Amino acid sequence: MEEAKKRVGEYAASYVEDGMVVGLGTGSTAYWFIEEVGRRFQAGELANILTVSTSDRSSEQARRLGLPLKEIDDVNHIDLLVDGADETTRQFAGIKGGGGALLHEKIIAEQSDKIIWIMDESKLVNQLGKFPLPVEVVRFGSWKVYDAFASAGMKPSFRKVDGDKLFITDSGNYIIDLHLEEIPNPQVLAAEIKAKVGVVEHGLFLDYADIILVAQADGEIIKIERSNTTN
Amino acid sequence: MEEAKKRVGEYAASYVEDGMVVGLGTGSTAYWFIEEVGRRFQAGELANILTVSTSDRSSEQARRLGLPLKEIDDVNHIDLLVDGADETTRQFAGIKGGGGALLHEKIIAEQSDKIIWIMDESKLVNQLGKFPLPVEVVRFGSWKVYDAFASAGMKPSFRKVDGDKLFITDSGNYIIDLHLEEIPNPQVLAAEIKAKVGVVEHGLFLDYADIILVAQADGEIIKIERSNTTN
Repeated sequence: MEEAKKRVGEYAASYVEDGMVVGLGTGSTAYWFIEEVGRRFQAGELANILTVSTSDRSSEQARRLGLPLKEIDDVNHIDLLVDGADETTRQFAGIKGGGGALLHEKIIAEQSDKIIWIMDESKLVNQLGKFPLPVEVVRFGSWKVYDAFASAGMKPSFRKVDGDKLFITDSGNYIIDLHLEEIPNPQVLAAEIKAKVGVVEHGLFLDYADIILVAQADGEIIKIERSNTTN
Repeated sequence: MEEAKKRVGEYAASYVEDGMVVGLGTGSTAYWFIEEVGRRFQAGELANILTVSTSDRSSEQARRLGLPLKEIDDVNHIDLLVDGADETTRQFAGIKGGGGALLHEKIIAEQSDKIIWIMDESKLVNQLGKFPLPVEVVRFGSWKVYDAFASAGMKPSFRKVDGDKLFITDSGNYIIDLHLEEIPNPQVLAAEIKAKVGVVEHGLFLDYADIILVAQADGEIIKIERSNTTN
């Protein structure tokens, strides 16, 4: 699995061209993308790129590699964003936020001209929902939002870290994971959750990605593109 | 004006009964409500109330008055919330957030069985929009949200404090005020704004209040109730 993540992460870096503003995703697959962008930058191939990060963690990695790092508000747009996903269908509906960075990832995605998702084949599914859906919520009154999800049968749990401490996002909020098992209609659910008072954002990313790259166990990388699918 | 605010704030405190969980609003009119609740509490009339506050400012006032203060997550519900509004129609569509507490005010309002809005007559309008509509936004990427509002002709401005410092809400976010002048369809606008990535909440409060108390300059208090209107 780690080898597949590394392979697809490095492969995605071949989409980066010199002069681009590059969005850096978050997670164990995006990690390998960032490493390879760093290597190409250090080799002089991408001397004029700028990068924008989706998390404090990826920012640290970029700094360590010496990559020129900008704030999202200091660039006009992002040419290419490469990020992972926790689950995706071939219809470009995905769940992100397993690493807790969904809000910043979505804000960056909104500003990106082209988005590539990278993953190993375990993430490619026919229906979303086995992976718990993360919802970022305001801390104030968060138990009331939890209660509302529980009453609606959405099996919520607060994201924890270091045992029993509540996980806090880069924007200072909590994450509630919804253990839905099945999400038959992501569009309806997305609108319903975002409309709730106290909800900042959710991990349903619908129609954001332009290309999905899937590393198979056999060594091949499948490429799923919008409106046509090729290998 | 100050006299009218004081009159209606104190009058609203007569709705508080001993044993209630009382929501404390924020702002210059709610201030007088809280003062009067404090006076009645100290006089022993409301010995068994609990209070829940919508802002750090109102919490401080409650502490100063010795009122028993609970966190929203530590009470099952709120019996009565008394809060101000910056503008309201007689159809119970209002704008709140002039004081910057709209998010916590709305979270508290969601948990309240009965809501009374108090104001002087300058706040009662036929159409919303003269008062700038506050939108609470995540700090990360907030200029992109600003740009989107500007492109849509919504005349945004960041809320400032102490000269040129950006105002930060109790939940750590920024506020962008939309200078719309006219809001012909609040429902549509509310849904549109809340759906935006980066928006946490907005100041349109639609169908929250049960009673609106308006202090007129002539000394009278007008009472507007859902489904019937009396003086």
